[in-house]
Amino acid sequence: MTLKEYLSTNDRFAAETGVELLDVREGYARARMLIEPRHLNGGGVCQGGALFTLADLAFAAAANSRKALTLSVTSNITFFRSESAGYLYAEAVEVVNHQKIPCIEVRITNEQGDLVALMTSSGYRKRCELPVDGLE
Amino acid sequence: MTLKEYLSTNDRFAAETGVELLDVREGYARARMLIEPRHLNGGGVCQGGALFTLADLAFAAAANSRKALTLSVTSNITFFRSESAGYLYAEAVEVVNHQKIPCIEVRITNEQGDLVALMTSSGYRKRCELPVDGLE
Amino acid sequence: MTLKEYLSTNDRFAAETGVELLDVREGYARARMLIEPRHLNGGGVCQGGALFTLADLAFAAAANSRKALTLSVTSNITFFRSESAGYLYAEAVEVVNHQKIPCIEVRITNEQGDLVALMTSSGYRKRCELPVDGLE
Amino acid sequence: MTLKEYLSTNDRFAAETGVELLDVREGYARARMLIEPRHLNGGGVCQGGALFTLADLAFAAAANSRKALTLSVTSNITFFRSESAGYLYAEAVEVVNHQKIPCIEVRITNEQGDLVALMTSSGYRKRCELPVDGLE
Repeated sequence: MTLKEYLSTNDRFAAETGVELLDVREGYARARMLIEPRHLNGGGVCQGGALFTLADLAFAAAANSRKALTLSVTSNITFFRSESAGYLYAEAVEVVNHQKIPCIEVRITNEQGDLVALMTSSGYRKRCELPVDGLE
Repeated sequence: MTLKEYLSTNDRFAAETGVELLDVREGYARARMLIEPRHLNGGGVCQGGALFTLADLAFAAAANSRKALTLSVTSNITFFRSESAGYLYAEAVEVVNHQKIPCIEVRITNEQGDLVALMTSSGYRKRCELPVDGLE
Repeated sequence: MTLKEYLSTNDRFAAETGVELLDVREGYARARMLIEPRHLNGGGVCQGGALFTLADLAFAAAANSRKALTLSVTSNITFFRSESAGYLYAEAVEVVNHQKIPCIEVRITNEQGDLVALMTSSGYRKRCELPVDGLE
Repeated sequence: MTLKEYLSTNDRFAAETGVELLDVREGYARARMLIEPRHLNGGGVCQGGALFTLADLAFAAAANSRKALTLSVTSNITFFRSESAGYLYAEAVEVVNHQKIPCIEVRITNEQGDLVALMTSSGYRKRCELPVDGLE
């Protein structure tokens, strides 16, 4: 099973939220989510938790692409635009491939390419590995 | 309709995720979520996005308890413990009740009171108000 | 040499900036700084870097009070008030005493006790120790 | 007086710390600092507060390049490498030029181009303007 298949199957919250992994490469991942009425908050726009879930799956894929099991330690997310329909894309890029505490930046954009949110996350690499064979 | 009723009904993503508002007072809110299998990530523990959604509803209730509609600008969340069952509680406390950019801190704890995650969020108050009458 | 003496002497940037360690206990530290004209920014108020330096020394003392040498990984600081004179106090409290990645919160207040800034920092404990004997 | 001259003269803390503004354009700024013994912390490497001061001046120049006086609301900084000598460069790039709450990212690199720290800051634009005429 590849990392992409593993996370797509086993991250049940991301799957239930409708997040789909598109690409997984070393230090990189891309995911998307179609905004549905169930993703909206009290203001009628996509809830921050849905955006975070989208970004977090992209983070998890990029962070775990280096073999060692990597958990999220801290995430900082800034919201720029409210979106209520269409696809959102999350692109995770490794800022630093540190052997213990990597840093990954995730940009969420809408279908027009406008920046919706920016997340910077620090992870922590454990000694064990996910039971996967390959990335995609 | 009170703010508690409004957010419980209209924040559809939080409702779908199973987050329940318990208390809403001026500058304060408390919410909870029962961890179910659907909340787990690829590591078998509660996904960061589910934790964020729990914290974000508590933030929204505390932030909007001052009448002006308040959006989240940026959130910083740090994860301390992995949880895979039981109730999680989020307690949101206003750090600063600024008229334009309030700051709210949310602590997520498990049933034993252990700290699971800490979120600090800055909001932005708009000129309009939510159509609510009272808090609880 | 105690940790308090060690940091007061060897953190040359904090000393040059005028930061003074007041208390160091396990998982706790307090520092202060008298705002002088040299601390001001282009807006005539205490520069964010001076506030950060004050908070960072309090963080360093609290983080290193558990013996293992602890570095700062990431810090999130939110500014609430502009100050241009008087003493500022930074109080660092351990949120979580994790053996590898502790989290410490620092609150900066003015002489009247108003909150000036809030910093949340995650550290990383190394295997080595600072050459100190005791805390204060 | 240009914005570059204004900040170089009036940000006294940045000037005292040895930070030098190199370039100021719309939504962009670059600064540098030569690490001296006075910048070191108890671990013998450049103190986080000195790095923050370097990043903060670059942020201030980029944030104020849009005319409206812009203050820092919250900053998230992650440290990757310890440096104890040589020049450090801070490059500030506007992520979003929002009329009220812009977001700016600052990357600090050493002379070899290695990433030393990454800062993401949200600002708040006031109604007034700095008394400057032009950028550089």
